[in-house]
Amino acid sequence: MAKLFFHWGSMDAGKSTLLLQTQHNYRVKGMECLLLTAALDTRSGEGRIASRLGLESVAETFAPDEDLFEKIMVPAAQAKVAAVLCDEAHFLSPQQVMQLARGVDELKVPVLAYGLRTDFRLQAFPGSAALLAVADVIREMRSICDCGRAATAVLRFDETGNPVFTGPQVQIGGNSTYKSVCRKHWFEALREHEEQEAPVH
Amino acid sequence: MAKLFFHWGSMDAGKSTLLLQTQHNYRVKGMECLLLTAALDTRSGEGRIASRLGLESVAETFAPDEDLFEKIMVPAAQAKVAAVLCDEAHFLSPQQVMQLARGVDELKVPVLAYGLRTDFRLQAFPGSAALLAVADVIREMRSICDCGRAATAVLRFDETGNPVFTGPQVQIGGNSTYKSVCRKHWFEALREHEEQEAPVH
Amino acid sequence: MAKLFFHWGSMDAGKSTLLLQTQHNYRVKGMECLLLTAALDTRSGEGRIASRLGLESVAETFAPDEDLFEKIMVPAAQAKVAAVLCDEAHFLSPQQVMQLARGVDELKVPVLAYGLRTDFRLQAFPGSAALLAVADVIREMRSICDCGRAATAVLRFDETGNPVFTGPQVQIGGNSTYKSVCRKHWFEALREHEEQEAPVH
Amino acid sequence: MAKLFFHWGSMDAGKSTLLLQTQHNYRVKGMECLLLTAALDTRSGEGRIASRLGLESVAETFAPDEDLFEKIMVPAAQAKVAAVLCDEAHFLSPQQVMQLARGVDELKVPVLAYGLRTDFRLQAFPGSAALLAVADVIREMRSICDCGRAATAVLRFDETGNPVFTGPQVQIGGNSTYKSVCRKHWFEALREHEEQEAPVH
Repeated sequence: MAKLFFHWGSMDAGKSTLLLQTQHNYRVKGMECLLLTAALDTRSGEGRIASRLGLESVAETFAPDEDLFEKIMVPAAQAKVAAVLCDEAHFLSPQQVMQLARGVDELKVPVLAYGLRTDFRLQAFPGSAALLAVADVIREMRSICDCGRAATAVLRFDETGNPVFTGPQVQIGGNSTYKSVCRKHWFEALREHEEQEAPVH
Repeated sequence: MAKLFFHWGSMDAGKSTLLLQTQHNYRVKGMECLLLTAALDTRSGEGRIASRLGLESVAETFAPDEDLFEKIMVPAAQAKVAAVLCDEAHFLSPQQVMQLARGVDELKVPVLAYGLRTDFRLQAFPGSAALLAVADVIREMRSICDCGRAATAVLRFDETGNPVFTGPQVQIGGNSTYKSVCRKHWFEALREHEEQEAPVH
Repeated sequence: MAKLFFHWGSMDAGKSTLLLQTQHNYRVKGMECLLLTAALDTRSGEGRIASRLGLESVAETFAPDEDLFEKIMVPAAQAKVAAVLCDEAHFLSPQQVMQLARGVDELKVPVLAYGLRTDFRLQAFPGSAALLAVADVIREMRSICDCGRAATAVLRFDETGNPVFTGPQVQIGGNSTYKSVCRKHWFEALREHEEQEAPVH
Repeated sequence: MAKLFFHWGSMDAGKSTLLLQTQHNYRVKGMECLLLTAALDTRSGEGRIASRLGLESVAETFAPDEDLFEKIMVPAAQAKVAAVLCDEAHFLSPQQVMQLARGVDELKVPVLAYGLRTDFRLQAFPGSAALLAVADVIREMRSICDCGRAATAVLRFDETGNPVFTGPQVQIGGNSTYKSVCRKHWFEALREHEEQEAPVH
């Protein structure tokens, strides 16, 4: 019985590495996967999935409005897709998550989606929210906060090195940097930020 | 290290039973838990948590606007709360989920929340969406579809026995009935419904 | 696809409660489970599964040498067993675990086994060792140590209240008492015991 | 709170890849891990951990009789070990697993062990049996059978390509080959083998 998996983790958790390892595992059995990653602009096409450890693979990209059920159905009908491996799954639209779920249920193709759970405001990404709501299996991939705890949140810093807690979820072409932290340290940074922002009387 | 757990499951999965078992496990160690459940109206007060197997316990209720960090802090300061056990956690507001997370991180009180994941429209409840986004541990509690698969979705039926897919998330005083089904059968019911609703040409 | 589940937990974790809840979940769908528990002597027959919370049900018992594949096959062939729910699964023989696995794979009957993981010497029971080796899904059921940690070990005390670390795995008719503790406190009790036992020079 | 993790998986599941990714995750936080792998002979010394995807790292080796609590304690006392990452953990002795557990509990160093669960006879390796009995967290790493199911068992083939089910657990210098399969197909190969071996009347 095919399933929809959502592997979520903070930056650096090894999501792309695990995706590429999974592709490898299918390959040694003679099976091919359909690799998907988010398009940087609105057109789909050829992309690549790369891990920080130096691994990489060519992938197809998904555009915001693309029907992913159709995208799976074509190769699945030709019996060529053993599984769909989707990177940057937090960028899926809720509709696309439902299309992938339909692919699992009707075409019996396992879908393994990898992505961030929450953004720098501790809000779920739209694709992640939909995957958390309908996935058959939800698995945490663990990265580490400086304090040794599991890093399940992310801080965004502006160019002067100060954490920011408002702004667009995705920032194109900015100078922001990010850091994976545990929820406790995310909240501490938020409170410190709020105290500094508070008007002095 | 205290953690925020979200045990989600469809109706009949045994959420209240597990909650009451957990209370029992703490009790045999001489520890007391704070039991919380949703208030049926806007005032908090005394409620009860009951399982379909016949177990029940008195619980405090949480009202929509109540600050749950404050609610935990008072007994926790008195060293009386070993853990918070929250039933019907899908009715928490996102703010209340953050307050519970703060209770975990700052007061070091474990919080175990139990609730539905999605409503009859396959949309996450607000409290569930927030818990899925920030919980340390997400655990599925399994109930069974007629077909033997895991029932991870729920169908709502009107008084004539037909499935409905629109309407308010919570229906007070209606005659709706509900049934736990797997995602595949939820989608099949949706498509059948859409075909019947489609205009005849 | 049917699976072999092993839910392990220390005493008081709620294993029998969860088993009976699972039976209930199948029943509300009109499906019957085969309930199994260990025979107190070498003959199988009628037994019962009871939880500390007051729930109970009649169950069949399994004797040490009984072939459990045969036991499942008879009712499964009559399409009457939706699942097998086995309590006290640590008392299964390794052969019986393999028979249950065969029931899962060939008869497509899900088997949910519930039992202790380790005895008072921190050694796996034979049935548990076999289940840990071949189960499709291994799930911890959590009970609590006095210190608040997960209780994953058990201490045996003799009639004078002193912990013991040697002796038979199962003690019939003795006056031993047991306590669920975390591994750290199990090891501390062991070291304290060893120091007291050490010869004085 | 430090924990003892056991990540088990069949060959090709990506255990070494995940271990090296974890090392990377600690490194980007400025923390160093102690990497351990089994010595090929009885002396410990310098080894390496390599994944089939091309990643590798230098590691210390553990010899069969080495005290791993001591081995952790030295660097941990110098506050240099953020975590212990142990590959080929199925080759640990049960005593060494207890030493690692003590390192977790007393030195508060997380230990992440990666290894096979069962050998070609579907019997747990000694180190795996001990880890399954005492680990705080047990996680499956999934590889795939030809049939698409999870491969949780392994077949050994002799030089003529026939599956074998008896013989030493570890074979040095032989010409055996191995294949990851699901439990169902492992059992099917066993039964076919037994039928061929059965005497003809």
